[in-house]
Amino acid sequence: MPTPGQETEQGESMQVSGGGAATGPHVLRRMNVAAVLAALREAGAATARVTELAAATGLSRPAVTRALTELRERGLVDFAPAAPAGPPAPQRGRPAQYARFRAEVGHVAGVDIGPHKVLVLVADLAGRVRAAHRAAVAPGATGPELFTAVRTALTAAAAEAGLDPSGLWAVAAGTPGIVDRDRGEVLLAPSIPGWAGLPAVGELRDWLRCPVLLDNDVNLAVLAERRLGPAADTDNLVFVQWGERIGTGIVIGGRPYRGASAAAGELGFVDLDGPGDGPVEPLRPDGMGPFERLVGAAAVHRLAVAAGAPVGEGHDIAPLFAAAAAGDPHALAVVDEVADRFARGLATLLLILDPGRVVIGGGVSQAGETLLGPLRRHLRGRTLVPVTVEASALGERSVALGAVRQALGAAEERLTGPAHL
Amino acid sequence: MPTPGQETEQGESMQVSGGGAATGPHVLRRMNVAAVLAALREAGAATARVTELAAATGLSRPAVTRALTELRERGLVDFAPAAPAGPPAPQRGRPAQYARFRAEVGHVAGVDIGPHKVLVLVADLAGRVRAAHRAAVAPGATGPELFTAVRTALTAAAAEAGLDPSGLWAVAAGTPGIVDRDRGEVLLAPSIPGWAGLPAVGELRDWLRCPVLLDNDVNLAVLAERRLGPAADTDNLVFVQWGERIGTGIVIGGRPYRGASAAAGELGFVDLDGPGDGPVEPLRPDGMGPFERLVGAAAVHRLAVAAGAPVGEGHDIAPLFAAAAAGDPHALAVVDEVADRFARGLATLLLILDPGRVVIGGGVSQAGETLLGPLRRHLRGRTLVPVTVEASALGERSVALGAVRQALGAAEERLTGPAHL
Repeated sequence: MPTPGQETEQGESMQVSGGGAATGPHVLRRMNVAAVLAALREAGAATARVTELAAATGLSRPAVTRALTELRERGLVDFAPAAPAGPPAPQRGRPAQYARFRAEVGHVAGVDIGPHKVLVLVADLAGRVRAAHRAAVAPGATGPELFTAVRTALTAAAAEAGLDPSGLWAVAAGTPGIVDRDRGEVLLAPSIPGWAGLPAVGELRDWLRCPVLLDNDVNLAVLAERRLGPAADTDNLVFVQWGERIGTGIVIGGRPYRGASAAAGELGFVDLDGPGDGPVEPLRPDGMGPFERLVGAAAVHRLAVAAGAPVGEGHDIAPLFAAAAAGDPHALAVVDEVADRFARGLATLLLILDPGRVVIGGGVSQAGETLLGPLRRHLRGRTLVPVTVEASALGERSVALGAVRQALGAAEERLTGPAHL
Repeated sequence: MPTPGQETEQGESMQVSGGGAATGPHVLRRMNVAAVLAALREAGAATARVTELAAATGLSRPAVTRALTELRERGLVDFAPAAPAGPPAPQRGRPAQYARFRAEVGHVAGVDIGPHKVLVLVADLAGRVRAAHRAAVAPGATGPELFTAVRTALTAAAAEAGLDPSGLWAVAAGTPGIVDRDRGEVLLAPSIPGWAGLPAVGELRDWLRCPVLLDNDVNLAVLAERRLGPAADTDNLVFVQWGERIGTGIVIGGRPYRGASAAAGELGFVDLDGPGDGPVEPLRPDGMGPFERLVGAAAVHRLAVAAGAPVGEGHDIAPLFAAAAAGDPHALAVVDEVADRFARGLATLLLILDPGRVVIGGGVSQAGETLLGPLRRHLRGRTLVPVTVEASALGERSVALGAVRQALGAAEERLTGPAHL
């Protein structure tokens, strides 16, 4: 039954709802609950006072208190007995003044599915990573084999977090190639035979009975970089994944830019090899694009071998960069050539996008300043305006961390909707 | 004095104002006037009924009528004696039912300032072009000489429209290079010596006593293409200006994308010439970028001369394309080579932006399908997803037409504000 007090509260809620037409008291109360929950989650592990939540949401204190009560009944909030600093316990007859989001009540998983590894992170509802599992994938693994590896890694990571996989609230995964996010389908994945068209998302949904999202891997990585990395909260940002493959995730105006056919940022297929003999074939049997063949991890390995610089097994180029850092002239010459090649391709992207800021991740980027110093030098004179080039601070986890963020978004409905825990 | 009827009107106006806090009756009435005027201008040369305007604005009929009365008093609206089809003259004692925006009451100018020409279009407030003046600029003209040419062309075009230049309501101009729109300054204009840093906008403002805007030329062209061209109202669009210089204007999500330093879209500086000897020098004395040197109009002219294909004086390549269209094998071979070169550079942009749609303008594009056919063929296999490639329907006028649109925006304040006509 509405009282005058409730009417005031609903009037304030109208600001939150944007004045939508079909808003009854029930809908408004749900929106208030969602707003309070969002503010609490923003506070992270810290407790928050009712007055702070009222200020953050624009709701009245009674409205905040009512929302907190509902959230406690649903197990999403508990009240701290005392605040870290501040006045003593709340007055008798009124709800506690300090609330905390019970992030541990649910978990999501973020998955990085690549041709060489599967990495699963399990995080609580505050995005704190609780378990990680990495599984190497055998070279030449097929789509179905990769899918099996994903299931196994999800089960292992969940177990490490003390969960059954069916206890996950949402799962998001990133994978190379062109991905139809709406249909959860890989349209083109040159680096993984048999991966495109596989009904992996549908099978994961059937197995896990929770929302499952699929996106291009670097599109997820750029979200993580923008949220957690050195370029936090910049409006425009390009993230370049530089490993065996080369791809970029683009944020424009604070939002991911994917292109008309979800195929933006395909730097790996840019062709710098001078005039060709008629049309090229970007999709060769190895699935690699021209720029990847020029300066991907395998090409760097080949260059190092040819120059007599140290390398490891397979395409392991860490020894090359270690030797360069120690001043080995052969290694330094190879790093300089690699930086020059990469600068040529990156410059095309910089001239077209003028992003102001580029974060470089992926295996090759782990060389850090040993590589980025020469890269910045070779970029000079190739662009018309300055650009900041930095190494990712998230390392190998950036795709999986971006996936965790997506999964948290997908878990939102269960948090704010009428569903039971 | 507010009456109950006026209060109703103000309540409705709140929807238009977005519920802003500092809105008194005066501000609200001005916003109603602006909304009615915008709806009338949308109708173009046609008359509009009060009921149509009420539906378009969400205002009540009395509010629309009051706004129309004010607009008539200010000379911006007249009432048609009879509608093209519909009921006869309005009832005695009520305002006429059919209103028309008097677009002829004011004029704006759009200016295309290039190294080789100045093109001025004078348009009425509905954007209809009333006069055009094109002045050739001598090769090697300096910034001050170019500025004099702009003044002369503005005066000539205004005169043709029956105006003194001081009668213009607003002027917008596009020019090559990197432009700081907020300060109205050219930061970098490699193709025009002495143009960067010139206080041209300030001098034009002092002379014309009206708003004067300056923007990068292709950024204006893409606005015109999106509004008037074959790609009307697509969300993502790339416009490539292909003449002596090569530049691109980018629309993403329906809005111009200019980059972090207003330097996005610099396709002309992309370097496809294979590995270089250390850092390149994009800013050579001729101010041309590597891709412009490879396939700009001058390069096309050189290729044609070398192949014995017909060309005209200077860099005139129209005879080349005419001969190719007539089947001349030498000309066809040159066109094929030109298309191949251009496809290589355009592909880098398509791989990074995936715009879905590209409109090609500028002098070279006037070859039409003779060039676009081979270009589409050479693009095949260079991109991962399809793209529509079309010639501009606006031809040489696209920059100036985009400038007219910008100028109309700048004239808005005079239309809706309290200023006298």
